[in-house]
Amino acid sequence: MAMLKNPGIKYRPFPQVDLPDRQWPSRTITKAPRWLSTDMRDGNQSLIDPMDADKKARFFDLLCKVGLKEIEVGFPSAGATEYDFIRALVDEGRIPEDVVVQVLTQSREDLIKTSFESLAGAKQAIVHVYNAVSPLWRTVVFGMEQSEIKEIARRGATFLRDQAARFPQTDWRFEYSPETFSTAELDFSIACCEAVMDVLQPTVEKPIILNLPATVEASTANIYADQIEYFCRNLPGRDRAVISLHTHNDRGTGVAAAELGLMAGADRVEGCLFGNGERTGNCCLVTVGLNLYTQGVDPELDFSNIDEVIQTVEYCNQLPVHPRHPYGGELVFTAFSGSHQDAIKKGFAAQEKRNDELWAVPYLPIDPADLGRSYEAVIRVNSQSGKGGFAWVLEQDQGLKLPKKMQAHFSRHVQELADELGRELQAGDIWGVFRKVYRLDAPQHFQLVDYDEQRGTDGTRVFAGKIEIDGQVQSVSGRGNGLISSVVATLAEGFGVRLEVRDYSEHAMGSGTNARAAAYVECVLADGRVVWGVGIDEDVATASVRAILSAANAGR
Amino acid sequence: MAMLKNPGIKYRPFPQVDLPDRQWPSRTITKAPRWLSTDMRDGNQSLIDPMDADKKARFFDLLCKVGLKEIEVGFPSAGATEYDFIRALVDEGRIPEDVVVQVLTQSREDLIKTSFESLAGAKQAIVHVYNAVSPLWRTVVFGMEQSEIKEIARRGATFLRDQAARFPQTDWRFEYSPETFSTAELDFSIACCEAVMDVLQPTVEKPIILNLPATVEASTANIYADQIEYFCRNLPGRDRAVISLHTHNDRGTGVAAAELGLMAGADRVEGCLFGNGERTGNCCLVTVGLNLYTQGVDPELDFSNIDEVIQTVEYCNQLPVHPRHPYGGELVFTAFSGSHQDAIKKGFAAQEKRNDELWAVPYLPIDPADLGRSYEAVIRVNSQSGKGGFAWVLEQDQGLKLPKKMQAHFSRHVQELADELGRELQAGDIWGVFRKVYRLDAPQHFQLVDYDEQRGTDGTRVFAGKIEIDGQVQSVSGRGNGLISSVVATLAEGFGVRLEVRDYSEHAMGSGTNARAAAYVECVLADGRVVWGVGIDEDVATASVRAILSAANAGR
Repeated sequence: MAMLKNPGIKYRPFPQVDLPDRQWPSRTITKAPRWLSTDMRDGNQSLIDPMDADKKARFFDLLCKVGLKEIEVGFPSAGATEYDFIRALVDEGRIPEDVVVQVLTQSREDLIKTSFESLAGAKQAIVHVYNAVSPLWRTVVFGMEQSEIKEIARRGATFLRDQAARFPQTDWRFEYSPETFSTAELDFSIACCEAVMDVLQPTVEKPIILNLPATVEASTANIYADQIEYFCRNLPGRDRAVISLHTHNDRGTGVAAAELGLMAGADRVEGCLFGNGERTGNCCLVTVGLNLYTQGVDPELDFSNIDEVIQTVEYCNQLPVHPRHPYGGELVFTAFSGSHQDAIKKGFAAQEKRNDELWAVPYLPIDPADLGRSYEAVIRVNSQSGKGGFAWVLEQDQGLKLPKKMQAHFSRHVQELADELGRELQAGDIWGVFRKVYRLDAPQHFQLVDYDEQRGTDGTRVFAGKIEIDGQVQSVSGRGNGLISSVVATLAEGFGVRLEVRDYSEHAMGSGTNARAAAYVECVLADGRVVWGVGIDEDVATASVRAILSAANAGR
Repeated sequence: MAMLKNPGIKYRPFPQVDLPDRQWPSRTITKAPRWLSTDMRDGNQSLIDPMDADKKARFFDLLCKVGLKEIEVGFPSAGATEYDFIRALVDEGRIPEDVVVQVLTQSREDLIKTSFESLAGAKQAIVHVYNAVSPLWRTVVFGMEQSEIKEIARRGATFLRDQAARFPQTDWRFEYSPETFSTAELDFSIACCEAVMDVLQPTVEKPIILNLPATVEASTANIYADQIEYFCRNLPGRDRAVISLHTHNDRGTGVAAAELGLMAGADRVEGCLFGNGERTGNCCLVTVGLNLYTQGVDPELDFSNIDEVIQTVEYCNQLPVHPRHPYGGELVFTAFSGSHQDAIKKGFAAQEKRNDELWAVPYLPIDPADLGRSYEAVIRVNSQSGKGGFAWVLEQDQGLKLPKKMQAHFSRHVQELADELGRELQAGDIWGVFRKVYRLDAPQHFQLVDYDEQRGTDGTRVFAGKIEIDGQVQSVSGRGNGLISSVVATLAEGFGVRLEVRDYSEHAMGSGTNARAAAYVECVLADGRVVWGVGIDEDVATASVRAILSAANAGR
């Protein structure tokens, strides 16, 4: 078995739609479509282990919370489990006022009867009937002519009409799918839909839903859009129908097909959260919804807490959301590359400075905060990160804003650790190596115990400190023009340690009265070595003193 | 933090391209593009733990085996690990004759110099220079005017030209990416490319590669296609350039964008196996390649053993291929639903009967065998499967072809087990319940030890058997018109067990002289109960005898 060198003998190109004046490529999507979730369909979209009643209930509640207003809750005629779950939703009043539930059924009288009975008493409900219409299904699966297939659709519609009349207390809506639409003759799909509409007599006020499935994705996304536009233009009574898309992902373009299908005139999108579904999955409602959002269109779906959505979906489906899944994946807002990290940092900084609300940060098409993700996840550090990454992590994690030159000094140590560990560095790894390199943990050779500082009559300052060395506390002092120079003088006079301060900076860590301060000093030692010292303290002055001692300890 | 009700204040719709006479929607892809794998780029496309040298070597070998002819092997100026790996490929002669390696570098003289040095001595190689050109990067990241950005590109080209001259023994090719192309002004991208072409003077015989990245996917796929068509139509010297696509997947439409981009006139696609890449990933080369294949176009990539490809990619990337990933995912060729399973079975049967090679099986856009997948993976059984599924599994796994009516009898038992276990049923589960329900395992109440059969002078048959009951072997006999009726008579006369055979069928299990036979009998017992018996034996006659005894055991 192997791939063929001439696949043309086994596979044929998908035929194009003759639509030279197609309009969809010039259109954009300017408002949210109606959404239907098919997540809870029987078999729950071909899960290895379909959801039990508890999981179905959780999923239903999640869908309501996300804002779905149309939810397919199952296939009640498939068995008692499905039927009982749906009945319980109605009987226990668990369907929110503004949510319409939908059930799926084949076009058979007994199944349609059961379907209505499962929902009787609901305020409003959609019964969704389908039959396969494309040539392959007609010949191979059913052995039927077009006329017989159309008759199945017409009779299904009759059952719908008659069963609905039995339960007038419910506001029934109808959905019809010419299943396998994408591989069927367009005019025949239209004829089947017409037959159904003839029976059900939809109106502009109470239209029928016509759902057009790419049961198997069989062509590039533009051809599906052509099919949708052709259908919309040629369906008699277009204004009495809601055109619904149901894409699959066999060619990896289910989201694109739904988007181009909306541009082609459709009103509604069926799909699943994170694109679950038979085989390669259905259209991902999270992706299409958030794609709209990033174009400034309210999707009328709420993914403010996307991590919670992921958690429930993964629990119920027992399938993972891929680390690179758009918007939801673990790695989606993560930059490891130094140049990307640098660009993102600059983007955030520019964003803060600007007055407008417009989101414009390199490499981030959406603000992670809109989805309840923290900025901290944005930048992660591995051996490829360079200095941008750890600097961001130290700032987010510890509140330290390292001077540029010090970043270069520290990056070497981070790189060494990343190479040594051969894995991604956690914030804790970076903080650990920082404490070690800049000698933040006691005991060090020179360890500050206490100090006092006085202003001399000549304006100079006198530093009088207790410094512990090898377990012995020594009292030492020195004079200078300011605090730092007086400490430097003390080190020289008391211990013979000579260092020259070349650069100094200090900042508050966080805000508020309890914020600590971090001080950084770049020093040149007597032997010419350049060292950095870091001091952290609740008191800004003490932080400086500690920074000098940190540098002095580096000289040992 | 939450999603905004009016996202329009934070996000703007992506501007359309003014291209009313666009041609790409009427085109199809009729031949394979040139492919470039970027899987091995530095950081290996933002992996949590980038590949070490061993993994890079494995990945390189895999890419060669799959048939990639252009492979980006790294970013040699990023560090010694990258440089040494690339140098070793050249020095150890590990680059196949027909493969061109490519390296990536920013547009800086020192980096470009190192890049050439890493590949010097290779037979042929591509050096790929990029710089970001879009407004957000210009203002936020670089603080530069258009002219300065264009000058970076022009200078990069000069370095390329000059460095190539240092190593004339290698056939150098050049690639330039106006990075962030998809969010840049089209005419400015063209201007940057022109500046580069002015320096490098590509020819029709030796064209430059111009790679047009959707660095961040920011619009529906059709707009990227418009951008590509606009670029191709407006680039001076189009015939001296190979237009290359580099899509990302931030909106989940990276594959669609690459396909529409090819229709729009591009010649080459950059991407990764299974769509790995920074954030949400790059274009998936497996998907685009096999999409072509299913349209009868030879992709010139070989995924005949897709499981091996997955194994290596997952090992090297330490990221999973999602169970629903097109073509490669574990669940892609799996049908759990009874009606789908039934349609697939009919499709396979019709496929066998037909004379042509054309692939036409419902729900399977590609023959799994073309990818080295077995048909057995196609149908799996859970509580949603109905009878089609287990019948297929029994046939594939045990060679049993159950009669239709018997499938209905057995399905109840399978359903019970599926409900009881609450998980997918394995072939072993189904086989186990089958043996139990049809009493295939000794000891049973009536257990055949041996038998002899003789034809009477009147043409009737006499069955003379040794049958063990409760540990005691009894010799019994009976007469009938044939084997089965003589066994039935034996049971009646010897043990008072009365049963009437209503249906009987038998078939060889597999082919060849060693094939065993399976016999199925439907019987009505004296109390009116309908039971099924199954007999399996190397001898066709003995299988029938066993089937009757199996039915008799059911009566106990």
